[in-house]
Amino acid sequence: MNKPLRIGIAGLGTVGCGAINILHNNAELITNRCGRAIEIVAVTAGNKNKKRDADISGLKWVDSALDMVADTSIDVVVEAIGGSEGIARELVEKSLTAGRSVVTANKALIAHHGIGLAKLAEQHNAMLAFEAAVAGGIPVIKALRDGLAANRFTHIAGIINGTCNYILSRMRGEGLDLPVVMEEAGKLGYLEADPSFDVDGIDAAHKLSILTSLAFGCAPAIDKVYMEGIRGVSKHDIQFAEELGYVVKLLGIASVSDEGILQRVHPALVPISSSLANVNGSFNAIQIEGDAVGTVFLEGRGAGAGPTGSSVVADVMDIARGVAYKPFTLPVASLKAPKFASMENLKCSYYLRLSVIDKPGVLADVTSIFRDAQISMRSVIQHSHNPGEVVQIVITTHETQESSMQKAMDALAKLGSVKEKPYRIRIESV
Amino acid sequence: MNKPLRIGIAGLGTVGCGAINILHNNAELITNRCGRAIEIVAVTAGNKNKKRDADISGLKWVDSALDMVADTSIDVVVEAIGGSEGIARELVEKSLTAGRSVVTANKALIAHHGIGLAKLAEQHNAMLAFEAAVAGGIPVIKALRDGLAANRFTHIAGIINGTCNYILSRMRGEGLDLPVVMEEAGKLGYLEADPSFDVDGIDAAHKLSILTSLAFGCAPAIDKVYMEGIRGVSKHDIQFAEELGYVVKLLGIASVSDEGILQRVHPALVPISSSLANVNGSFNAIQIEGDAVGTVFLEGRGAGAGPTGSSVVADVMDIARGVAYKPFTLPVASLKAPKFASMENLKCSYYLRLSVIDKPGVLADVTSIFRDAQISMRSVIQHSHNPGEVVQIVITTHETQESSMQKAMDALAKLGSVKEKPYRIRIESV
Repeated sequence: MNKPLRIGIAGLGTVGCGAINILHNNAELITNRCGRAIEIVAVTAGNKNKKRDADISGLKWVDSALDMVADTSIDVVVEAIGGSEGIARELVEKSLTAGRSVVTANKALIAHHGIGLAKLAEQHNAMLAFEAAVAGGIPVIKALRDGLAANRFTHIAGIINGTCNYILSRMRGEGLDLPVVMEEAGKLGYLEADPSFDVDGIDAAHKLSILTSLAFGCAPAIDKVYMEGIRGVSKHDIQFAEELGYVVKLLGIASVSDEGILQRVHPALVPISSSLANVNGSFNAIQIEGDAVGTVFLEGRGAGAGPTGSSVVADVMDIARGVAYKPFTLPVASLKAPKFASMENLKCSYYLRLSVIDKPGVLADVTSIFRDAQISMRSVIQHSHNPGEVVQIVITTHETQESSMQKAMDALAKLGSVKEKPYRIRIESV
Repeated sequence: MNKPLRIGIAGLGTVGCGAINILHNNAELITNRCGRAIEIVAVTAGNKNKKRDADISGLKWVDSALDMVADTSIDVVVEAIGGSEGIARELVEKSLTAGRSVVTANKALIAHHGIGLAKLAEQHNAMLAFEAAVAGGIPVIKALRDGLAANRFTHIAGIINGTCNYILSRMRGEGLDLPVVMEEAGKLGYLEADPSFDVDGIDAAHKLSILTSLAFGCAPAIDKVYMEGIRGVSKHDIQFAEELGYVVKLLGIASVSDEGILQRVHPALVPISSSLANVNGSFNAIQIEGDAVGTVFLEGRGAGAGPTGSSVVADVMDIARGVAYKPFTLPVASLKAPKFASMENLKCSYYLRLSVIDKPGVLADVTSIFRDAQISMRSVIQHSHNPGEVVQIVITTHETQESSMQKAMDALAKLGSVKEKPYRIRIESV
């Protein structure tokens, strides 16, 4: 038996405790599968005496995460602190510089600083692995890097924020509006103190930029992600979508065309029979299109101690087995500075909801705006109501250009009979 | 740039041509991802001049696959001949013995001789990889070995025979009976000359035994797979299942309990809302339960040149990158000889269809048999009909033991009013 791989774990929240529990519970199995044991030789967190979900009584405590950097008894540092700056970043940079391998679940760090860190890893012959940074327990990074590596990827679409998927699933299941579900989710501890990271799409954008990098061979470009969260989605949208045969999901989509790479995070209508439509609650899923393999669909838990710990420990096991990959598959010097396509040139079908006061001529005004913008309408729904009331009109379009749709929405917003800002959701065939 | 990895491809059917096309079309991308080129230095097949789906005009032809064994210019032999014996087996055995790594899509070979071959690979320091042997383009072997490696696996259920799934999907979609769809599938070239490999569950059993080995750390035990194909499924079953909220699928299931490992391939009723129920046509899917990760679901194309080639080339790329795993994750000496559970002790719910002549007392006879076997019935369906006609009665049960159910079926078969052998399908919650 080879000598054990020695790891230090910095951060003892969900991720850190999840990893510790797996390493304890499945120690024998993990040792057999790796051909060597994995030993936790140091742990640290902000507060030593906090009540935790893992038993750390037998583990060596160090007072500062940075103490791990110089500790030559540590082979691998597991960074489970979080955040793109501060101590997490410093720990990872210094560990790699000292030639220690790093495993992390930190999507913000990898999205913002992944390339710099990958360079350090290359220079100092260390591994940098981050399977847990995207989609929790789903081994999607390994799939792109390894299992599907023979493919030219063309399109990736995923449900990669479990909180938003939970909220949208509850809204659909219970007919509730967003603020009600968010309050409920907050009470259950499912929401961060500042929920904007989740509901405004920032977290999904971090993850998408990492997937884009691996699939298309470029550096993560978080500033090139079009980002629109779920705050605009109402229970009416979910009901109208259902009536039209769709489900509303927050998607992260990366695709490639002659114009370049397009990355976008926004709510989307997906066909009710599609695999993505059936991903419920806090589950995540990713649909990958490759030129050889066709469509591959991966689904699993996107968060939580077990799933995230599963991915963290799998990365540690790779290192224990001597399996070495470049962090972004390609060497940093080979990552392209790609052309990015403009969101304005996106072509898709749209769902548009208008709140109008019903008076004679309203629909004529609306439809003439569509005609002037040369947008072809596919369907119109207006339910019965009392005359003079505010009524919801829902229009779906045939494929048109984002910029045309935006012009039409601007014109619609100026109509006196339109009472709220028109709300549109893109329709994805997925 | 490192020197190229040189491969020989033996067998130029769907798999071999699929791999060649990917290596040609994505050569630059594959070279970048591996840090070295992959060169095809020899090809062979039964007939040199046959029309093929890949251009082999620029490739060196060798007259016999076995010529590759002694050819020191070859690093990796891709065995794409098929069959568990004969030339395929000889080529793989001799290549490994000569220290050449082998990549294969041959599930029958791995299911029957995988352990002997893995031993040869270990002895001669060669790789043996077979991602394409199970579920075509879905990287499920890598997921079990690598991405989900931190988990103790408890249950695997999969749709792993695309032909059967195609047939059952057509039967459901078009309301057709099995012989009609099989004739149609035969004309379209979807069926082998002898379809029993697919429709009797043999192919699925091969694949299941490989998944079991990887998940539970034992040698593939094809003789320990309970096997029941789809020949008994009628369009009535599919319609009754739908009425009950289920879809009929051929599943391969491996699970572990205190009694041991149970491997079974048989038609099953799965809830209409489940992920597996929504896998249509020739697609494959595998649902994996791990103690840490929970449920992970993988779906994709199970056959065809592109998907199978994708997995073959991914394995070759692993070797090019120096990524080395034991064929069955554990060293051969560590693979357990496990206890296998008896199918008779399986506990599940059942769907049972009886063809009876409706006369007074029939249902009383039937229900008293269930009472005597101490099987609790959950639902009974009998549609209206003319008196004296043969009518279908469908009964679903609460959870009971396989052996009790078998006894009840034997007793039912002896009733004078029961006109055909009773047909039962297990209900899986998945």
